[in-house]
Amino acid sequence: MFITQALKRSTQLYGDRLATVCQGRERTWSEVEARVAKFAGALRKLGVENGERVAILSLNSDRYYEYFFATPWAGGVFVPINIRLAPPEVAFWLNDSGSEILLIDDRFVPILDELEGQLETVRDVIYVGEGDAPDGMRHIEDLIEAADPLEDAMRGNDDLAGLFYTGGTTGRSKGVMLSHANLVFNNMNCIHTFNYWQGMRWLHACPMFHIAGGIAIFGVTQVAGTHVIIPAYAPDLAAETIQERKITDTLLVPTMVNMLVNMPGVENFDLSSMKAMAYGASPMPEAVIRRAMEIIPDCDFYHAYGQTEAAPLVTACPPYCHVFEGEYANMYRAAGLPAVGVEVKIVDEDDNELPRGEVGEVAVRGPNIMLGYWQQPELSAEALRGGWMHSGDGGYMDERGFVFIVDRMKDMVISGGENIYSAEVEDALYQHDAIVECAVIGIPDERWGEAVHAVVRLHDDMEASAEEIIAHCHKLIAGFKCPRGVDFVTEPLPLSGAGKILKTELRKPYWEGKTKQVN
Amino acid sequence: MFITQALKRSTQLYGDRLATVCQGRERTWSEVEARVAKFAGALRKLGVENGERVAILSLNSDRYYEYFFATPWAGGVFVPINIRLAPPEVAFWLNDSGSEILLIDDRFVPILDELEGQLETVRDVIYVGEGDAPDGMRHIEDLIEAADPLEDAMRGNDDLAGLFYTGGTTGRSKGVMLSHANLVFNNMNCIHTFNYWQGMRWLHACPMFHIAGGIAIFGVTQVAGTHVIIPAYAPDLAAETIQERKITDTLLVPTMVNMLVNMPGVENFDLSSMKAMAYGASPMPEAVIRRAMEIIPDCDFYHAYGQTEAAPLVTACPPYCHVFEGEYANMYRAAGLPAVGVEVKIVDEDDNELPRGEVGEVAVRGPNIMLGYWQQPELSAEALRGGWMHSGDGGYMDERGFVFIVDRMKDMVISGGENIYSAEVEDALYQHDAIVECAVIGIPDERWGEAVHAVVRLHDDMEASAEEIIAHCHKLIAGFKCPRGVDFVTEPLPLSGAGKILKTELRKPYWEGKTKQVN
Repeated sequence: MFITQALKRSTQLYGDRLATVCQGRERTWSEVEARVAKFAGALRKLGVENGERVAILSLNSDRYYEYFFATPWAGGVFVPINIRLAPPEVAFWLNDSGSEILLIDDRFVPILDELEGQLETVRDVIYVGEGDAPDGMRHIEDLIEAADPLEDAMRGNDDLAGLFYTGGTTGRSKGVMLSHANLVFNNMNCIHTFNYWQGMRWLHACPMFHIAGGIAIFGVTQVAGTHVIIPAYAPDLAAETIQERKITDTLLVPTMVNMLVNMPGVENFDLSSMKAMAYGASPMPEAVIRRAMEIIPDCDFYHAYGQTEAAPLVTACPPYCHVFEGEYANMYRAAGLPAVGVEVKIVDEDDNELPRGEVGEVAVRGPNIMLGYWQQPELSAEALRGGWMHSGDGGYMDERGFVFIVDRMKDMVISGGENIYSAEVEDALYQHDAIVECAVIGIPDERWGEAVHAVVRLHDDMEASAEEIIAHCHKLIAGFKCPRGVDFVTEPLPLSGAGKILKTELRKPYWEGKTKQVN
Repeated sequence: MFITQALKRSTQLYGDRLATVCQGRERTWSEVEARVAKFAGALRKLGVENGERVAILSLNSDRYYEYFFATPWAGGVFVPINIRLAPPEVAFWLNDSGSEILLIDDRFVPILDELEGQLETVRDVIYVGEGDAPDGMRHIEDLIEAADPLEDAMRGNDDLAGLFYTGGTTGRSKGVMLSHANLVFNNMNCIHTFNYWQGMRWLHACPMFHIAGGIAIFGVTQVAGTHVIIPAYAPDLAAETIQERKITDTLLVPTMVNMLVNMPGVENFDLSSMKAMAYGASPMPEAVIRRAMEIIPDCDFYHAYGQTEAAPLVTACPPYCHVFEGEYANMYRAAGLPAVGVEVKIVDEDDNELPRGEVGEVAVRGPNIMLGYWQQPELSAEALRGGWMHSGDGGYMDERGFVFIVDRMKDMVISGGENIYSAEVEDALYQHDAIVECAVIGIPDERWGEAVHAVVRLHDDMEASAEEIIAHCHKLIAGFKCPRGVDFVTEPLPLSGAGKILKTELRKPYWEGKTKQVN
């Protein structure tokens, strides 16, 4: 199993059909494969040997797509960098991964100054943008043109294909090691789950650095579908591209779906080519999915749940869950059913499987599960204990096998031996009219181990006391789940690159010098 | 990757849905899994440990189905035996595989007498039939009832799952070693190629001993479809079962399709539930496929090509090839396009890839390719040289990537350095009105190495001389391909269990004491 097989098969069978579309450039499979072989040749000339890391920091492009195949073709390991990181975080990822080559586009060239002197391993920075290469930097197109096509290094199976760093909402960012087999098997899962097919035209709207983009980069290539690539998401650009390129499939996060379907004038676009839209990463508000189903009525919707560690697909909610009455009413809120080649079970602290309906940690097994965390043997052994990947997500499985995610385990508060899921408390808080934003954390408590604590931001023109807010919660949830204290803030809560509230930051002042049990 | 995962997932998600139907018995996934765990417990009690071989010689049944999961669940290796073998051949398979347990049904109990004293390794024979166990033999149902459910031995990945013996039309039968990963990956290929889905109801009409049955036994289980099992194929039973059980999918050989669609009274059956029918193993006559498309017009047809060594799917012709005009006219005659996770190339004698359209050997690579031949390291190394499985089939790939099979390489005649495909010569012979059956073989020739030789049987009331027949061929094909001599026979040509003409038998008198180059 090796990920360049997908590209080769697509070229062998559909060489003349459209493979990638980006910035008006259209390339067939034969053209893309020829470019990838030369791109790999250029990387080899730059000294890339088996197992060497090649990083990229760029908006989406066809070159980014080619990078995902050229790097393993040359024997290397890809390291796509989160485009929302601050320069010190970029430096950490590059240094931690030991990347020797960095590909960069216009958007990120300016941060090179800020990285000056901080990069320990990068020895070459190559320009992959749309204009002329900045002074002193070589253009990837010149390197490709000058290179001879390379023979595929034929790494595969358990060989490392790429490092995908996790967001790091809790603690330090970790490099998830995904093998060729992980990615190929995930392709197989995605093809069945989402009904990929040869004639599909995929819109790459999510950033390619994220493994969620991988289900398309590798999966759509596996069936020889067409990749239509926009540099970054904007609702009008997405709508125009769907109309112009007759897009059939895409993956968006709920916020993006919301921006698209509630964009003024959306009804003037012909979006009827859409056959399937997957979404995930955060809950889908009912109003948004209802509106999406109105705007593109012939489209199938899928709620997907995954993790970088699972390459990434774990479960999905099929189209028949996108209904508001009957047997499957509102079931799109579930994370869904385990994908075809994936095993899921819900376990307690001792890794015993829990009965249906009981909340525990979601554990996952399958050929898609990561090799481990880069240079973190202890964390890897802990996460993969007993052969199951411990997702860190709290959830349960219902009688029909649907998995529901309740909370991150790390965000669970353990007070007096009771597990309290912060999401449940936050749901109660959000029902208070004055609260615009909130987060629930556990803080040290001598008697109970941890105490439930709320950090809230009120609407500018509204007021509420801590007592009122706690009393409000007591009306909605069990007493032991209610906050014992409330902090008021006036600034928006700190967010991670993926848009999640950084609870680590909120907990920090309380835990200074102490050790939280769950980490 | 382990094949019991499919059973466990189906049970976890669809425990109450129908898993198997056989002889009026209906079982849900939960019931089947519970039985498999106890069946495995019974095998363990009989001494089955990791890697031990358990053979079965039986018509199709739900017990046969369960055997395919119970054996690996107990850590064992399944060895399904061809039901058309003569007793000495059964003895050879059992002894060669070193099977210690033999499961047997009513149909085959009588041959036990003939096997007396010939079995070197079998220490227990268990009855898996429909009646009472014969004297001195234990009934599998009693053993299952008395057993405790076993924990899954959790063999997987490259562990040996089963031995499937090849037909042995040429030389000695070989045990093809298929791993868990081989079978699971083939499931993934089949799911995409044939559009398997959870609501499907598969008719098991082909004998289960053959790996072609495996695409359903393992593949349909992977998506939790329902298995409807008939003991053996008969057109009326198949039609009744399709109607009664609303069968959606099946796999048949062309002869079976012919018997079904040309059965008198077929129009009285409601076959409209059929959504997909795959066929393979021999060419599909145009009249038969046309008739099939008339009888079940809403059904999709797939021509599948595979080999035991490939677990088995290699290529398939999609439904859009089942047309008689336009761009894909008559393309159903092709073996088809490589399956989604499979690589195919056509190579010459030195393993160089040949250009499109040139005939060579079909070579196959992928996670579905066998571990090797059981206890045949040299044959294995030869077949798998360079990491590619050398199929032994001669064929070519057209410009669009469709593979066409021309002939078995072994049936190729090499005369004066020219490769002559016997199938092409036989096609010419069959265009002679007087010929009812024929086979073309190579016989020793001092000058040319081999000479093209025809063995023909004429219609009872017709005549033709060798000279006439050779002259007929000269009108149709190049001179060097035409037979130099003709043997006339009056009995039907000898057939293998799989219905193929046994050319080894025909060649034998000519090659006594000599060595044929290709073997």
